[in-house]
Amino acid sequence: MADLFIALVHYPVLDRNARIVTSAITSLDLHDLARSARTYGVRRFFIVHPVAEQRAFATSVIGHWQEHPGRVFDSRRAEALALAQVVGGLDEAIAIAETQSGSPPTLVATSARTSEGISYESLRGKLDDSAGSPVLLLFGTGFGLAPEIMRRANLVLAPIRGVGDYNHLSVRAAVTAILDRLRGI
Amino acid sequence: MADLFIALVHYPVLDRNARIVTSAITSLDLHDLARSARTYGVRRFFIVHPVAEQRAFATSVIGHWQEHPGRVFDSRRAEALALAQVVGGLDEAIAIAETQSGSPPTLVATSARTSEGISYESLRGKLDDSAGSPVLLLFGTGFGLAPEIMRRANLVLAPIRGVGDYNHLSVRAAVTAILDRLRGI
Repeated sequence: MADLFIALVHYPVLDRNARIVTSAITSLDLHDLARSARTYGVRRFFIVHPVAEQRAFATSVIGHWQEHPGRVFDSRRAEALALAQVVGGLDEAIAIAETQSGSPPTLVATSARTSEGISYESLRGKLDDSAGSPVLLLFGTGFGLAPEIMRRANLVLAPIRGVGDYNHLSVRAAVTAILDRLRGI
Repeated sequence: MADLFIALVHYPVLDRNARIVTSAITSLDLHDLARSARTYGVRRFFIVHPVAEQRAFATSVIGHWQEHPGRVFDSRRAEALALAQVVGGLDEAIAIAETQSGSPPTLVATSARTSEGISYESLRGKLDDSAGSPVLLLFGTGFGLAPEIMRRANLVLAPIRGVGDYNHLSVRAAVTAILDRLRGI
């Protein structure tokens, strides 16, 4: 399998009025996404935030579960959160992914609002190829990734569709559904 | 399509030591599961809790978003939470599902620990049959549904598998992955 990385982006993202904002890190996102990342064989889960205090908060949440007594209380959280890495920007995540994999990752943006994109079957095929380039999946908090991130991505992934046209999954839910389609059995 | 219902069970469930406990309702579960339920065409999302104060808490969370000013602030949350219904026990959920669908639901338990169960393809086939009986999917909080619920179910669904043997998804993530496999496109 090719290496799969995910990044939870807190800036630049959109708010409900499509303004570009910086969202706050929530500890629950860290836990849920780390557990999903660990379940689906993600190599590293980046938390992207430009504000140092927010990065310190995320680092403290992760550290709590990796040290005594958090690790002793629930070693499975420690195991999942070991994948989490807090970075100040997307460039830092890309650089780390490239160092770990030996080649630059293909940036794949996700969006609930895009009308088309690469299919899950096609991206799964790329990931199943162990000689394939690494993939960094980008997820936006708030109301989604800002246009500048969408434009920077090499690919946009098709949106998750259920029944009808309501598609307002939480980012926790969307990450899991997407990873399950790409790696689930 | 056959009617699909889901129930988030807070009693009887297991704790980390496999003791039978009652778990607390968290508002985030209500939001995330309601949004996933709405996305995947679930007919009703039951929150099962035996304690009246906990049911009142859940009802107040749901009501906040269905009334002014919550509805005005985010109508999509209102639309999702309109599917949520708080009940005191599983029998009440079953009775409501039967009333809504006209026939008793097939109870399908979910578990991360079961070694086998009905496949997603098979259950999806049953749900695609508009003449099929309604299905009530049961999800456990804490460390999963207690044995008495597992025994009572007509079917157990195969566990979600990713890469390797780590499968400690949050209930929010597991519900979404399962609904996506049964109803996603």
